[in-house]
Amino acid sequence: MSSASKRSGSATRLSLQRYADATLQPDVDWVASEEPLELRLLYQDATALHCAQLSITMRTPGHDFELAAGFLHGESIIRSASDVTSMAYCVEGGQEQLYNVVNVQLARGVAFDPARLLRHFYTTSSCGVCGKTSLQALEAQGCTPIAGDFRVPLELIGRLPHALRERQSLFERTGGLHAAGLFDAAGRVLAVREDVGRHNAVDKAIGWALMAGKLPLSQSVLVLSGRAGFELVQKAVLAGIPVVAAVGAPSSLAVTLAQRFQVTLLGFVSRERFNVYSGAQRLGAREGLAHGL
Amino acid sequence: MSSASKRSGSATRLSLQRYADATLQPDVDWVASEEPLELRLLYQDATALHCAQLSITMRTPGHDFELAAGFLHGESIIRSASDVTSMAYCVEGGQEQLYNVVNVQLARGVAFDPARLLRHFYTTSSCGVCGKTSLQALEAQGCTPIAGDFRVPLELIGRLPHALRERQSLFERTGGLHAAGLFDAAGRVLAVREDVGRHNAVDKAIGWALMAGKLPLSQSVLVLSGRAGFELVQKAVLAGIPVVAAVGAPSSLAVTLAQRFQVTLLGFVSRERFNVYSGAQRLGAREGLAHGL
Repeated sequence: MSSASKRSGSATRLSLQRYADATLQPDVDWVASEEPLELRLLYQDATALHCAQLSITMRTPGHDFELAAGFLHGESIIRSASDVTSMAYCVEGGQEQLYNVVNVQLARGVAFDPARLLRHFYTTSSCGVCGKTSLQALEAQGCTPIAGDFRVPLELIGRLPHALRERQSLFERTGGLHAAGLFDAAGRVLAVREDVGRHNAVDKAIGWALMAGKLPLSQSVLVLSGRAGFELVQKAVLAGIPVVAAVGAPSSLAVTLAQRFQVTLLGFVSRERFNVYSGAQRLGAREGLAHGL
Repeated sequence: MSSASKRSGSATRLSLQRYADATLQPDVDWVASEEPLELRLLYQDATALHCAQLSITMRTPGHDFELAAGFLHGESIIRSASDVTSMAYCVEGGQEQLYNVVNVQLARGVAFDPARLLRHFYTTSSCGVCGKTSLQALEAQGCTPIAGDFRVPLELIGRLPHALRERQSLFERTGGLHAAGLFDAAGRVLAVREDVGRHNAVDKAIGWALMAGKLPLSQSVLVLSGRAGFELVQKAVLAGIPVVAAVGAPSSLAVTLAQRFQVTLLGFVSRERFNVYSGAQRLGAREGLAHGL
């Protein structure tokens, strides 16, 4: 089989064989692009300008600056757009930019402790690491329960997965992407982002909000094309999102986290049905749905 | 909403409200359990016994030793069961075991370099990090293309997703778990493992094989309930698995990797159709399918 493939940003066209009617036939199709993204943090302390190289993840190219911003927000390294002086793709020796390295310059005064990030891999917890530890870590970061009087019409919920899917341009071509969407209480879309990684799609959506000065997202619903695990709900808590609606199932720890931080958590959302795992008080009567939803 | 929930290993029973027929009704249901797992590696060098604390991931409790073994194999820290002297849940001060910490003692002579693992987060690559770099890293680890004359009947492929799903006991209850299954060329199941994390499900299946002395899995098909990204195909390459069949889509880099290491990569596998992205030569005529498949 040929290894030739044509890369086109977020999707890649390639040769394949299709099996159908008991026969293999050559064809071409698109698949979601996946490439590693490296983040380089430039930060100033009392003595010098430092560069820390962080490897995030495999991701689908596109909206890379939003991904970087959302990732850094989820790690509590930045809080707002003003914490970042500049973001740029790497240029080395005057050569063409290579689009898998993003340099992020932190504003003067934004503290960065490389040792904190290492804890993601090397932990120093005692024998009792557990869900409780994970929740306490969030509280120690200053996270508080989501307040405010944001409400979503019950009738709107079932329409959100379709509204998300309609805006998944890449999924249409590749069938292989997760999506995260931000909607308001009238069902109007604020942003939809796609990625091969569920976490990246959420980082891109929240990163978009951060760069647009829209954090905290206290008037928004985060819609997930897949399941709602602990880490995705954690990102919502950090971004102040009051309602998370997932097409898939939640995990036990995601439910515990949502209850603790008063996030409204909905799972198995389809047109006619969904489950409410936490925060049912935000689901209200119909009020001013956007046209067509 | 009550935060009370009953934990029962891999699934957790909790209270929720169901929305259907325009009404919210209280109910109870199961969700997939999610808890952090910490790995502690005990290893001996020339001077002393060391302990490295590695935090893996959020995972669904169950088959934790297999998860640990598969994870360490995927990181190229261990190659076979004999590289591990013992695995045990943590006991501290004679207290009850806490099931989220697993101590793994490496056999004397098994080299472990903590700095290597750090590269997952901190990288030292030059400006040109890209898919190519990721492939070269695998080659540098001594990975070679999958050889051998293993073949799978074309007719078997479409039956594998159903065979996998039938053995997903937790999915039935929670609707929220990924699965990875190992099957032979006659469609007989070797192992099926479930987890909230796709990577963990694969680690558990490969960890099972490692502990059972069945590596390399040169006569096996790895069936994935979801998509096939780079990292999952990478784990297959390291375990010597010649055929990967995914219910979902592959990513571009997964295809490139499969082509480079001669893995047969199938995507969008359903009863009647699937796509072949690499290695079609392993798909042969019908021969001795297991009864009932």
